[in-house]
Amino acid sequence: MSMNRRSLIGAAGLALATPALQAGEAAEAAKPAAKTPPPHVTKILAQWILGSSYDTLPDPVRRESVRSVLNWVGVAIGGSHHETVDVAVSALQPFSGPPQAGLFGRTERFDILNAAFLNGVSSHIFDFDDTHLKTIIHPAGPVASAILAYAEMKPVTGKAFLDALVVGIETECRIGNAVYPNHYDAGWHITGTCGPFGAAAAAGKLMGLTEQQMVYALGLAASQPVGLRESFGSMNKSFNPGRAASNGLFAAILAAKGFTSSDGMIEAKRGWANTISTKQDWSEITDGLGSRYEAQLNTYKPFACGIVMHPTIDAAIQIRDADHVRPEDIKRVDLKVHPLVLELTGKTAPKTGLEGKFSIYHAAAVAFVEGAGGEKQFSDRAVNDPRVVALRQKVVPVITPGIEPAQVDMTVTLNDGRTVHRYIEHAIGSVEKPMSDAQLDAKFADLAAGILPEAQAKRVMQLCRSLPELKDAGDVARAGVSGA
Amino acid sequence: MSMNRRSLIGAAGLALATPALQAGEAAEAAKPAAKTPPPHVTKILAQWILGSSYDTLPDPVRRESVRSVLNWVGVAIGGSHHETVDVAVSALQPFSGPPQAGLFGRTERFDILNAAFLNGVSSHIFDFDDTHLKTIIHPAGPVASAILAYAEMKPVTGKAFLDALVVGIETECRIGNAVYPNHYDAGWHITGTCGPFGAAAAAGKLMGLTEQQMVYALGLAASQPVGLRESFGSMNKSFNPGRAASNGLFAAILAAKGFTSSDGMIEAKRGWANTISTKQDWSEITDGLGSRYEAQLNTYKPFACGIVMHPTIDAAIQIRDADHVRPEDIKRVDLKVHPLVLELTGKTAPKTGLEGKFSIYHAAAVAFVEGAGGEKQFSDRAVNDPRVVALRQKVVPVITPGIEPAQVDMTVTLNDGRTVHRYIEHAIGSVEKPMSDAQLDAKFADLAAGILPEAQAKRVMQLCRSLPELKDAGDVARAGVSGA
Repeated sequence: MSMNRRSLIGAAGLALATPALQAGEAAEAAKPAAKTPPPHVTKILAQWILGSSYDTLPDPVRRESVRSVLNWVGVAIGGSHHETVDVAVSALQPFSGPPQAGLFGRTERFDILNAAFLNGVSSHIFDFDDTHLKTIIHPAGPVASAILAYAEMKPVTGKAFLDALVVGIETECRIGNAVYPNHYDAGWHITGTCGPFGAAAAAGKLMGLTEQQMVYALGLAASQPVGLRESFGSMNKSFNPGRAASNGLFAAILAAKGFTSSDGMIEAKRGWANTISTKQDWSEITDGLGSRYEAQLNTYKPFACGIVMHPTIDAAIQIRDADHVRPEDIKRVDLKVHPLVLELTGKTAPKTGLEGKFSIYHAAAVAFVEGAGGEKQFSDRAVNDPRVVALRQKVVPVITPGIEPAQVDMTVTLNDGRTVHRYIEHAIGSVEKPMSDAQLDAKFADLAAGILPEAQAKRVMQLCRSLPELKDAGDVARAGVSGA
Repeated sequence: MSMNRRSLIGAAGLALATPALQAGEAAEAAKPAAKTPPPHVTKILAQWILGSSYDTLPDPVRRESVRSVLNWVGVAIGGSHHETVDVAVSALQPFSGPPQAGLFGRTERFDILNAAFLNGVSSHIFDFDDTHLKTIIHPAGPVASAILAYAEMKPVTGKAFLDALVVGIETECRIGNAVYPNHYDAGWHITGTCGPFGAAAAAGKLMGLTEQQMVYALGLAASQPVGLRESFGSMNKSFNPGRAASNGLFAAILAAKGFTSSDGMIEAKRGWANTISTKQDWSEITDGLGSRYEAQLNTYKPFACGIVMHPTIDAAIQIRDADHVRPEDIKRVDLKVHPLVLELTGKTAPKTGLEGKFSIYHAAAVAFVEGAGGEKQFSDRAVNDPRVVALRQKVVPVITPGIEPAQVDMTVTLNDGRTVHRYIEHAIGSVEKPMSDAQLDAKFADLAAGILPEAQAKRVMQLCRSLPELKDAGDVARAGVSGA
């Protein structure tokens, strides 16, 4: 075997740091049509992260940061006893460090790196966590999992916590914006690949990193992307936000002690964005940094299923509750829908809760019967409830031009001949029609039911809501464990 | 903001598991010219990994596995007191689990995940570890770091350890072959991206995973690639093989308890190879599996610098030792070299040890003066030694057609007018002219000097050499710590 040119260069290892090779690389870079060199986004982000302060965050951003935490804590509690979490907890217990942080809804304690991982897994179990619709990143998972574990070990104020959350969400979502959709289309699970940046930024902020250390923390985060879309449908999907959280925290912990990386890991020629994506829109990172916030665009799912079914569930609940329509009075439910709705959720006879998540027939029926679309409505029990089964056979979706994927036009014909109609342009949970605080509380209570006592669930919610005044943000974590 | 099509699909989360979407995807896949579906390489590898046995490994593979371990232990000891390791140790100590495994050349003990990371970092500090030249993967780092830590916690025989090492190296290098060079050219540090597969395969083999668990372990490894070439020249480069080791071990630990992934994470449409590379040559994974071994192609560097300088150092040492040429007798050293040698190592007046690694002038001079090219010959001390500085000014490299990058034609003219000539077609350390066992021992001793007492270093070497007979492979780790 003969050595090839690359093995010689590669073996030189540190050669890339030499002027000789840099000259060579510059020549290489100059070959294509001269391009503007990218802005130093790694450094720009690091400076902005360190300069941010809760005191200067716009009110709507502050408000949304609290809602993001509340929603995230709720889904983390809700997922905490799923088999996925049970398996991960039992696998990692023999290797955990000191009991520095707890797990929502459980009794075990772990070192903060493992706790960040496990809470991150737990919060994505039902795919019911927050969504940044522009990138489909689930922003809170990687960020909140990392910094709440840290906050439990080292007290930080609620204001500092929320500021860190906001800079973390901003960092991961802006980097996501720069590479979306190409990066996602290629096969990457974008929450897992951008999440480490968010976790490193937020944790590094709380740790008081210098600007250079923050640049390195982002570089070490860039070195640890997580997750491929091929794993969707397995435990591996929830693994990704969890590992993104622990990877970002790991990066910040190392950088805080002086572990180095490159200065331009996001934008350099052989850095993250060029390596992991065919699109790099640097302006998505730099434009309006500090004036417009991605956290403000965060959305929360009212229903534990794909967003294409949300308008149908929304319409059914409205008709049920506002028009007092009872399931037994329904003769027929006509739905005008976008083709994607049937492509994604066309199962007519689901048998399991999971299959129910892919049945628009079940979604409509269960919403009329139970007035909700939570995790309990996508259980084996609900899917096999005779009243739901009977009603779903009366649901008639028809592909209709002019209806968008996230819209529905529903007409319910009653046994007495009357009809009731709803057109949902924006379903509840969209940016245009966000869930109210009361609805978020109800979602939280529903997720926590059966896991934490009602009074405790309420106390955790109150702590989330009072984060801007909390002296110790770690109280949220401590209050959310089983037996607290 | 309107929701886009992707956000709807993405939010559906588990939708990819439904027949409806699979049908849609099949239609999409059918659009381009019909392609043969890829072989199920994840499953093929899992089956082969579990079927391998030390008893049926060819003798040259057994021999090379021992040499790989010996070389890796030597470089891990050699790097163990570098600032990079000091920083990482101090950063991670507060979070470490039980003291399950030691660190070469040091006294601290960590849980096996952290120990795998730290020994992996340590072994890559000098870029002096083993190299699979076809991919430039450094095979031992990710694999040996993971399984030696595991072996220290849970005793395995030396034979089982070496078999696991071989399957780990085979797995990471074959996957690397399938995507190299495109994947590396794009910017990925291939040791870090393929390393998790090797670590998961090897650790999973020792843990006794079932075939399905091994498939999932490889899937979780696929979800955790590490490292970008942009970080070369910083501590982040050594971070990568270390994190590859702990990520692969993490994957195996979770899979062993039942954590799931997809069945085809390497070859699926949105799996690892398609997402992370523009080239996927499946035959590199499947052809000759179990009959030809990548481990047999592993090479070890005799000199602590890029391979383009190796023939020059080799020639200088030969002339010095065989022809008894003393530095002070040298009038001039003529080198016929490939252009790449000057492009990469053209520094005429290096001032630091690191700069010396990029100076063919220094390399030739120090080899004549000290008869070696180890880490000590690329120190600040050596680079500023007046005898070396004087001699390097007499070195005259000339770009010459017909000379390959890993060759040199050296003519030394002495003060008395005599000339001595060496043509190096294959330098020591190449596949064609591998380092002898005695040379590997000398390299080990040199790396361990000043870190472990000479007698202890010898004992560790002997344990490595006797691995095929060891009842407990963990003895190698226990013998290599400071104070053992």
